[in-house]
Amino acid sequence: MNYRSAMSTIPKANPLRVGFVGLAANKGWAIKSHYPAMMQLPSQFQITAVLNLDLEVSQTTIEKLKLKHAKPFADIVSFAKYDQIDLVVISVNVPNFYKLVIDLFKYSQENENFKYLFAEWSLGRNLEEAQEIQELASQRGIHTVVSLQGRKSPYVLRAKELVSGGYIGEINSVEIAVIGGFYGYERPVKSPDYLYELESGVNLISVAFGHTIDILQYITSSYFSQVNAMIFNNIPTQKLVDENGKLTGATKPKTAPDHLLFQGSLTQGNVPVSCSLKGGTPVKKFTKNLIIDIHGTRGDLKLEGDAGFAEMSNLVLYFCGGKPNEDSSTSAETMEIYHLRNYNSIVGNILRLYEAIADFHFKTNPHSKLPKDFARQGFRFDGFPTFSDALEVHKLIDLVTKSHKSGSSLKVPGLSHLSATLDTEAPQSDG
Amino acid sequence: MNYRSAMSTIPKANPLRVGFVGLAANKGWAIKSHYPAMMQLPSQFQITAVLNLDLEVSQTTIEKLKLKHAKPFADIVSFAKYDQIDLVVISVNVPNFYKLVIDLFKYSQENENFKYLFAEWSLGRNLEEAQEIQELASQRGIHTVVSLQGRKSPYVLRAKELVSGGYIGEINSVEIAVIGGFYGYERPVKSPDYLYELESGVNLISVAFGHTIDILQYITSSYFSQVNAMIFNNIPTQKLVDENGKLTGATKPKTAPDHLLFQGSLTQGNVPVSCSLKGGTPVKKFTKNLIIDIHGTRGDLKLEGDAGFAEMSNLVLYFCGGKPNEDSSTSAETMEIYHLRNYNSIVGNILRLYEAIADFHFKTNPHSKLPKDFARQGFRFDGFPTFSDALEVHKLIDLVTKSHKSGSSLKVPGLSHLSATLDTEAPQSDG
Repeated sequence: MNYRSAMSTIPKANPLRVGFVGLAANKGWAIKSHYPAMMQLPSQFQITAVLNLDLEVSQTTIEKLKLKHAKPFADIVSFAKYDQIDLVVISVNVPNFYKLVIDLFKYSQENENFKYLFAEWSLGRNLEEAQEIQELASQRGIHTVVSLQGRKSPYVLRAKELVSGGYIGEINSVEIAVIGGFYGYERPVKSPDYLYELESGVNLISVAFGHTIDILQYITSSYFSQVNAMIFNNIPTQKLVDENGKLTGATKPKTAPDHLLFQGSLTQGNVPVSCSLKGGTPVKKFTKNLIIDIHGTRGDLKLEGDAGFAEMSNLVLYFCGGKPNEDSSTSAETMEIYHLRNYNSIVGNILRLYEAIADFHFKTNPHSKLPKDFARQGFRFDGFPTFSDALEVHKLIDLVTKSHKSGSSLKVPGLSHLSATLDTEAPQSDG
Repeated sequence: MNYRSAMSTIPKANPLRVGFVGLAANKGWAIKSHYPAMMQLPSQFQITAVLNLDLEVSQTTIEKLKLKHAKPFADIVSFAKYDQIDLVVISVNVPNFYKLVIDLFKYSQENENFKYLFAEWSLGRNLEEAQEIQELASQRGIHTVVSLQGRKSPYVLRAKELVSGGYIGEINSVEIAVIGGFYGYERPVKSPDYLYELESGVNLISVAFGHTIDILQYITSSYFSQVNAMIFNNIPTQKLVDENGKLTGATKPKTAPDHLLFQGSLTQGNVPVSCSLKGGTPVKKFTKNLIIDIHGTRGDLKLEGDAGFAEMSNLVLYFCGGKPNEDSSTSAETMEIYHLRNYNSIVGNILRLYEAIADFHFKTNPHSKLPKDFARQGFRFDGFPTFSDALEVHKLIDLVTKSHKSGSSLKVPGLSHLSATLDTEAPQSDG
């Protein structure tokens, strides 16, 4: 499975210098995922700058993590002008991202070393923000990376491989059922309010739906051609619980949705896709709380997980099907259950993103045929998802909202700009 | 479970005299289901007339089945005028039903004994036919029965009982995934064409969706308030196979759909429901081919079957949940797997319909509170589904078609005429 293991990935050049926004030694997502991932690639990445709103956090982080090449920052202006950064990684809460990245572009105009920008999904609070950010990066010629890291999940890649190899034949239906966490009847006292506010753009639709549907599109190498959505906020008031899960008696309002019904068809094969995404604690008793069921004319694929975070969960992949023989329409049916018991999916999927960035920059994957100026990963096996890929997901999310508000099934506009042929080109012999 | 077993169901009157349209000794649905069911209730039902287009079929059937009280018929006119019939059962192919029943009403005007009419779902080819038939029956004051026999499935009734008893709390989501048989890539040479023609009204939507969604509504005691549907005919040409399942090389066109995506919300609790119904052979490897997943605040219910015919399949019911104590909001969680290994669901569910008819007519269920002139079963436990109940399903199917054609999510109109209170009234002590 790990196509990369057979070859050296040690570059013959200096590591990429990383300016990290939002890395704090003792809290947040970055220290749990980006940092341990990067530490596994010391010849490729070296942290040279750390930016937090509080300078002390940046200093303490550098100290604690022994980042001896790193300089602490507390304002975006001087960080943007610092010329020892090749790659800026921004891992902050989505509502804070937009202003930060606008300032970064503004004040880094004369900083010629700044060539890569890695941002968390969902990039912006909405399509407009994401679009503006993508355009700014594109104008500057900066290579962008977005953490739609589900694309690097070994289960997702194996599923994609089986699909593109014809092992389940033509896909003819898909069912997805997910419990996405948060947004349920209860809310931890310490949980930040923005998670439950519609305006923040961080919710069941952007997160659970965004990641899951990107994974589905990536596996099937197909975008959607028509969609319908119904969005529910059936729990407008949540009960607060303390650290021990006990009700405090207090409540808080919730404006973010707690359920999304989504159905539509994929462009390739007009495949019907049914999708039910639910908020709240994953409590289903007779099914897993994350299910992606893909059915084809020759077999089935099923991805299962414990909760609706396919992009950062350790999954199980079930496969049944078979490759058609050249001289026959039938073949022996094979079955596979694919699971890596000790796979750390929180670090692992992000690590594979960094590997892909390194491969691209240092050209350490001789089988990769990525063009130098590739702007979108599309449905390629190699490369990494860019802001353009993120934009496609944002467009779909925007249609979901519009479909719900207008009570219509909507055609997905402007698919013609996506060259499926180019986007799906896979390395010839990546194994 | 069988509430009726403790009491005598032998009526103190003569059996209902049955005029049977479409009973043939050696083929068809009636001989496999209605006939063996009726034979288990000899004190309640006696066949006095058999009508088939071919008189010889009627004669042979009477002879072979030793129906010594029965008279053979070959034309609807004399059958309709025959005064030894209390209950007319019509089990013919849906496309033939409409004309037959119109003639039955026309020529039975002066036949005062004709009081019950039992017809197969889906009653008519479409809403208009069903509506006309329902109105004619209503004007004549005839008690109608429709074979939405899923309502009498012991699994469905147990599920309904658990839901109405509060054992899974408030329902907050439902997922349905079904493979409905027929309409797939292959078609048996002997299979009649009308099954694959849109106009016949016998298809994935009327049959698999109609029965399944009626069962869901019955279990949850809730109609739909809004719906969206997408209908697919992705297999416009089917390959013909012989009796041994081998391809003959010939093909036939198909206009009937092979997939329905349906989503919407139930009136009670605004519950999101996601539904994917697929045609073709039930071949799913990692899930059952009939799944009805009902989730609540206190537990889950799952109905599983081998194919998308919940109304005539032997199912398995999984339940996990618990009844809230009076003095506490929590209770011990219990689990139940309910399955009757030898239950003959083809006969059994129909048998329970006949039992319900007999109970109503002979008043053999002392716990039943059905009014004498009940026109609709609604969501009651006792009674039987009538043409009015069938009409509600037809209205939903009509909305499905309209939603698909217009590309809209549609509100379900006219729900106010359905008195939920009355319709859900259950017998006080039916156990």
